Amino acid sequence: MSKREPPAARRRRLSVDDRRDELLRVGMELFSTRAYDEIWVEEIADRAGVSRGLLYHYFPTKRDFYVAVNRAAAAEVGELTAPARSLPLAEQLRAGIDAYLRYAEARPHGFLTAYRGALAGDAEVRATVEEGRQRQSARILEALESDREPTALLRLAIYGWTAMAQAVTADWLRRRAPRREVVRDLLADALMGTIRAAAQAKAEELSQQ
Amino acid sequence: MSKREPPAARRRRLSVDDRRDELLRVGMELFSTRAYDEIWVEEIADRAGVSRGLLYHYFPTKRDFYVAVNRAAAAEVGELTAPARSLPLAEQLRAGIDAYLRYAEARPHGFLTAYRGALAGDAEVRATVEEGRQRQSARILEALESDREPTALLRLAIYGWTAMAQAVTADWLRRRAPRREVVRDLLADALMGTIRAAAQAKAEELSQQ
Repeated sequence: MSKREPPAARRRRLSVDDRRDELLRVGMELFSTRAYDEIWVEEIADRAGVSRGLLYHYFPTKRDFYVAVNRAAAAEVGELTAPARSLPLAEQLRAGIDAYLRYAEARPHGFLTAYRGALAGDAEVRATVEEGRQRQSARILEALESDREPTALLRLAIYGWTAMAQAVTADWLRRRAPRREVVRDLLADALMGTIRAAAQAKAEELSQQ
Repeated sequence: MSKREPPAARRRRLSVDDRRDELLRVGMELFSTRAYDEIWVEEIADRAGVSRGLLYHYFPTKRDFYVAVNRAAAAEVGELTAPARSLPLAEQLRAGIDAYLRYAEARPHGFLTAYRGALAGDAEVRATVEEGRQRQSARILEALESDREPTALLRLAIYGWTAMAQAVTADWLRRRAPRREVVRDLLADALMGTIRAAAQAKAEELSQQ
């Protein structure tokens, strides 16, 4: 922020950002626990204590609002699942998966609307889902190999596992079985298995050259 | 087909089906090797030797045509990847994965249009992609356990792996690396790892009860 701006302009700008954040917070609450089609713009405005006109000023359509909410939720889940570098590798990965599943379990509709539901076909929502995979992949690769460049095969394997994690989470949220800890262990073991499979396929390729 | 129909009606109906099949065959050729947006209805009609009017009679829009082509391709890949029950389990799975990758490699745009490209957000195309996963999952489960009901956890694990296989295939088709055999081995080893992970997570759950 420029130091030359008068204090009033700074306050006004902050206030606009704060208002937007507040609307997104209300949206995250609403969209995460109820289906997209059940939520009306009137309810969002009421809950946020603003007029419909003001809501439309920030977000021209309900879909635009959802897209922004979905992006904010993706950033939040990204922070919550950041690996704790002090733990051993397998524990870091397991803790990250556990945080991801807890987040999804508490906000099933938020996850399902983006992944399977009303807006799963929306190009921007799909881009956000894809960005989530890419970020998750990059983090796992970072945790795995801090000193050397990961192979193309390992990148591909980890990226594939992130798609598995999303599909498994979506299916689990719909069925609500088995228990979260069981799903966490499944995904953690499958990830370690995938990492080993990449190492093995690479070794086979090298031995054939 | 009813035996009471006169031969002429039967011929006419067959001819309609044959025409449709022929159009789909042309569509599979075109859409599999070039991007959706590059293909014009005129070219499809020319290639099939029919008028645009007749093409529109069968498929009202290019999107409708693509949806039908995509469904026909999914049925074809389903047949090609049917497991050879005479082989040992691991070989059955590896052969099925190999057939799937060969099919996708020869028709990269057909796969990418549905999975990542112009029509990846289309609800019917997404349903076809999802049906493909479900069919692949059911087959793998069938190959794994012929005599007992698979557990919910194994179903979830295999379903997750099919999402991984699609994501890995899409990424591989875009980058054209590593070699197909390496990707096949990666997916086959990851599948066996996933099956073991499901067995292990189940065992842990039972030991905690």
